[in-house]
Amino acid sequence: MEKISIDIVPGTDYKIYQDRGSFSYGTDAIFLSDFAKPKGMVMDLGTGTGIIPLRLIHNEKVQKIYGVEIQKDVAAMARRSVLLNNLEEKIEILDMDLKELENIFSKHSFDCVVSNPPYMKEGGAIVNREENFAISRHEIFCTIEDIMKVSAYLLKPLGKFYLVHRPDRLVDILCFMRKYEIEPKYIRFVQAKVDKKPNLLLIEGIKNAKADLKYYDPLIVYNDNGEYTDEIYSIYGMER
Amino acid sequence: MEKISIDIVPGTDYKIYQDRGSFSYGTDAIFLSDFAKPKGMVMDLGTGTGIIPLRLIHNEKVQKIYGVEIQKDVAAMARRSVLLNNLEEKIEILDMDLKELENIFSKHSFDCVVSNPPYMKEGGAIVNREENFAISRHEIFCTIEDIMKVSAYLLKPLGKFYLVHRPDRLVDILCFMRKYEIEPKYIRFVQAKVDKKPNLLLIEGIKNAKADLKYYDPLIVYNDNGEYTDEIYSIYGMER
Repeated sequence: MEKISIDIVPGTDYKIYQDRGSFSYGTDAIFLSDFAKPKGMVMDLGTGTGIIPLRLIHNEKVQKIYGVEIQKDVAAMARRSVLLNNLEEKIEILDMDLKELENIFSKHSFDCVVSNPPYMKEGGAIVNREENFAISRHEIFCTIEDIMKVSAYLLKPLGKFYLVHRPDRLVDILCFMRKYEIEPKYIRFVQAKVDKKPNLLLIEGIKNAKADLKYYDPLIVYNDNGEYTDEIYSIYGMER
Repeated sequence: MEKISIDIVPGTDYKIYQDRGSFSYGTDAIFLSDFAKPKGMVMDLGTGTGIIPLRLIHNEKVQKIYGVEIQKDVAAMARRSVLLNNLEEKIEILDMDLKELENIFSKHSFDCVVSNPPYMKEGGAIVNREENFAISRHEIFCTIEDIMKVSAYLLKPLGKFYLVHRPDRLVDILCFMRKYEIEPKYIRFVQAKVDKKPNLLLIEGIKNAKADLKYYDPLIVYNDNGEYTDEIYSIYGMER
């Protein structure tokens, strides 16, 4: 168990357990929790270490966050982090398959769904959190369509959906969002360098909204000197 | 008629008629003809002044280019430009509705389809060519779905499809491409400045190909000094 560490949740005073050997959060979860504007009842699909609920719960518009995680040992670690911060009234970790959420929640009972789902590791600066987990890497337990389908079930009309994913899955993401009536509204690409192609995709959808896609300026990770940009420092709540 | 001018087709020795009062080509047609890698039999849907055929015809892999244009006066001007350059063996302007192309061409008879179709003018650096034409601006005569449907009819298996459009139409574009089995393969965004959101979208699809979307580094129009970038000079075939 010596691989388990307790770290600070970036940008907060909370603490989080991480297993450096097999399961720790990555930059994509941090970027997603910066991008999302949650409120009310929030669901995090594939919560992993619970990093996203721990990053979002300080937002005063948030009532409660559920994090669902199919891997029992990872869910247990996330639950320990919730208890460590005395947040058990505000964050609940569900140890189950997200496809089963329909059995325990009413239709259209959430204001917001966020997800940093399993996907294959990509080369370059941005590395997925689940580097060592075949389950997480290979969409074994949930596909992009599964995520959209359960999100459409959970979200109220005009509820917000926030996803981080690989840019090469853009077609599947947009087409399944539209299929399940979660209209894509904002895209923000993450780029390693300012003049390079995107490494990561942040997307906001709104349930039952009309088509009107907009873009944010890209999130640039490194400046020309190879150092993190000011925005990366800001997202991580760090001083230069 | 004093508004009609004869200009050089950027990057070539050809000449082109333009009507500065109501119809002249724009940067988006130039960017698309830089982005496209045409060969064999090529169709340009909504050819306007004929700028795209005139930009692409010097490519030795191209056998013949058809340009279809529904606006009779614009098509006539494009045809005059073809004659002016003695290219009537290589470029044919069709004065008709692109939805009628199925009546004169066999299914799967083209290697490549390109299109800079009608779309609403966008604010910012990139301005659509058809500034004064309601027909062109408002998708009155053809929708994104029309373009994908006729392209799917015309293209051979593994034929290439190249489109320039507004980034805010990305969802429609990708979903209709997939619906008509023109799989999106490459995206290149055009940005006014290096750290800004995209103004324009260049996309390549391949008929009946497998899903595998990639991105090029963005095309940046202006450098930090507000001057055109080297790549813009290169695309226009101009010296600094």
